[in-house]
Amino acid sequence: MSTPLVVMKFGGSSVANAERIKRVARRIARERSNGSQLVVVVSAMGDTTDELLALAAAITDDPDARELDVLLATGEHQSATLVSMALHALGVPAISLTGPQAGITTDGRHGKARIAGIDPRRVHAEIATGKVVIVAGFQGMSLKALGMEETPTASDVHAAEITTLGRGGSDTTAVALAAGLGADRCQIFTDVKGIYTCDPRIVTDARQLPVIGYEEMMELANQGAQVMQVRAVELGWVNDVVIEVLSSFEDAPGTLIKEDPLVEQRNKVRGLAHDRNVAKITLVEVPDKPGVARGVFGPLAEAGINVDMVVQNVGHGGATDISFTIPRVELAKAKRLLEPLIRDLGFRDMTTDSSVAKVSIVGAGIQNAPGYAARMFGTLADEGINIEMISTSEIRITTIIAEDRVEDAVRALHAAFALEQPETVDTAAG
Amino acid sequence: MSTPLVVMKFGGSSVANAERIKRVARRIARERSNGSQLVVVVSAMGDTTDELLALAAAITDDPDARELDVLLATGEHQSATLVSMALHALGVPAISLTGPQAGITTDGRHGKARIAGIDPRRVHAEIATGKVVIVAGFQGMSLKALGMEETPTASDVHAAEITTLGRGGSDTTAVALAAGLGADRCQIFTDVKGIYTCDPRIVTDARQLPVIGYEEMMELANQGAQVMQVRAVELGWVNDVVIEVLSSFEDAPGTLIKEDPLVEQRNKVRGLAHDRNVAKITLVEVPDKPGVARGVFGPLAEAGINVDMVVQNVGHGGATDISFTIPRVELAKAKRLLEPLIRDLGFRDMTTDSSVAKVSIVGAGIQNAPGYAARMFGTLADEGINIEMISTSEIRITTIIAEDRVEDAVRALHAAFALEQPETVDTAAG
Repeated sequence: MSTPLVVMKFGGSSVANAERIKRVARRIARERSNGSQLVVVVSAMGDTTDELLALAAAITDDPDARELDVLLATGEHQSATLVSMALHALGVPAISLTGPQAGITTDGRHGKARIAGIDPRRVHAEIATGKVVIVAGFQGMSLKALGMEETPTASDVHAAEITTLGRGGSDTTAVALAAGLGADRCQIFTDVKGIYTCDPRIVTDARQLPVIGYEEMMELANQGAQVMQVRAVELGWVNDVVIEVLSSFEDAPGTLIKEDPLVEQRNKVRGLAHDRNVAKITLVEVPDKPGVARGVFGPLAEAGINVDMVVQNVGHGGATDISFTIPRVELAKAKRLLEPLIRDLGFRDMTTDSSVAKVSIVGAGIQNAPGYAARMFGTLADEGINIEMISTSEIRITTIIAEDRVEDAVRALHAAFALEQPETVDTAAG
Repeated sequence: MSTPLVVMKFGGSSVANAERIKRVARRIARERSNGSQLVVVVSAMGDTTDELLALAAAITDDPDARELDVLLATGEHQSATLVSMALHALGVPAISLTGPQAGITTDGRHGKARIAGIDPRRVHAEIATGKVVIVAGFQGMSLKALGMEETPTASDVHAAEITTLGRGGSDTTAVALAAGLGADRCQIFTDVKGIYTCDPRIVTDARQLPVIGYEEMMELANQGAQVMQVRAVELGWVNDVVIEVLSSFEDAPGTLIKEDPLVEQRNKVRGLAHDRNVAKITLVEVPDKPGVARGVFGPLAEAGINVDMVVQNVGHGGATDISFTIPRVELAKAKRLLEPLIRDLGFRDMTTDSSVAKVSIVGAGIQNAPGYAARMFGTLADEGINIEMISTSEIRITTIIAEDRVEDAVRALHAAFALEQPETVDTAAG
């Protein structure tokens, strides 16, 4: 049997100081003594990224995206070297690699790059010498045209530009490396024990899931569960990487994210997600004619504001109300953009509400089981919670409610769908 | 007339915080408005390097040299991006480059690499687009054999390893870039106005020198003047780079370091240097036989301890005393190494003195003018200062004296050689 190759990823809180870095090193050493070959991806220490952003903000309120990438990438360079040193101190051979050294190439969009490919040569070469390879997360490289006589080649160090993958990008680094290296498993170490049926800080009998499907996990992450980055889950799905989310502070089984053959039969709510970073905008009496939607959502998209739910009801008199949600932190910017449009596009008024929140139920197949929607809406009604907007996908039902009722809603729904109960496959459900 | 190309280097105290970085940016912008093409080399901000060393020390007391290099190099990456951002904020196009991106290759000795070459392609390409190029100082890259099928090429990013140049290495970066780019001048910005006849904190009428030769500057730096790194001066000498040392805090002419055609005729003391980081070790009654010197100095060299002055007087009875000086910070380590040798090599005893200091006079041609040595020793004698050791070079006379008499010695010698007087070429001197 060949030696298993495991990618382990540790986030910023796991490497926040020297003591924690030493603990992470002990954890890695223990895993290695089990006979695995290891590639370890690390985030920057604790608040380093925020501190570097503050430093840039003290220089200019509009930092160049390319320079900001070089600046922020140093955080992961630092943590990677320190974890490597801590392993040396335990007698474990190790080497840290930057994203470019690890062969991670990106599409070059500074601050929000997507991974374009993995050249696994150096990582494989280092593993072959018996080393644990520590990779700086959150970063990769693109190539810059140099205006030189020679065209830069795919490995030209002079042309290599650091690009970062956006917040939470180290998850993506780990999953992409696991895919590119053909790893047997990708372990994401966090400050929670795994994926829960809902936030255990709200519902005390929230249950840790032993396994969850990629699509379900993506919906949960999209709807507010903050354990893993959506992109990382998507990348795992596309490349069929088995991801394990587990605690960096205790030795206990985590949650496996993988293709779940039982999904179709299970037909059950798997988890709840909620998100308070929501604001609702309503455009009142919008003329019902072509081009209006583009006139509204075009400028928002150009400004990088992510519109989530949209509800439009065509009215009787040729005018309609359009409501939609955006991240609450973008509300002021969105209002500035939309106010001049009130006259241009001929709608009567705009109202905003920043005291709403999203609550979602997620589970493969629930769309085909009408009983779930009825039970969700009935449960909220029984609690006296008003539903302001609804949207659904194949495996999710999301409601917008008043923010101050979020915890009541989550507790009531968790009980109504009996999520504290271990699952059994129920082929008769629906 | 073609546009002049100038390399400017700013040290850590010049970029210690956001305000100083903005001031440096304004200085660069002003220089650029004079019509120069600019390459700017920066050190890490303030105490960053010491802070990173402390972080590594909290992890392990024996950090891997390769990992330490990656860690320390982040300090210069950060300051380079911040200076670039500050220039953008002033409307000046700029780009930061790491040492590897700037084409600086080294011999690969981690922590004390020497520059092997400069590939100027990317820097020239960026300058050609009108940008000010900010280069992270103190670092370059070497190539690592990867054990891959393909041999890494000279620009293989996967094989590129960051190496640092040792303390003060940013001076070396600046001079090497000036040489490699064919720059018209290399400006070293510091917290002093230039090179002085001696430390102006000790002698109030110390005089700033308008010009000094490479060799004189090297001797001054070697003997304790801390304004510039010796290696950087040497590199300037070999490559005939005109170096200007000047203040980053005020607009005033500095000191030019360059080939000085008047050196041979001047024949005068140019400056004094002193160094308190000195300890003296005396080996008592060493057997006068072959191999003893190697037995003593071999282990010190292997331990990286730099032996400076050595004085040996052959005695009458077949035994001799050997005295030598080392950096004071290395004294404990040297004693640990030498104590077991007392018996092995058969000398009677070892004494150490960590309360000595070096005082030197430097000037081209003084070796050929016996009057200078006599005047130096006589001046010290008049002050009641005992000379413990003497060494000389072509252009320097160095004495070891008690540390608590250093300031008296420097003041007396400055006056005795009339260093406060502007120089005139005196072909009759000597």
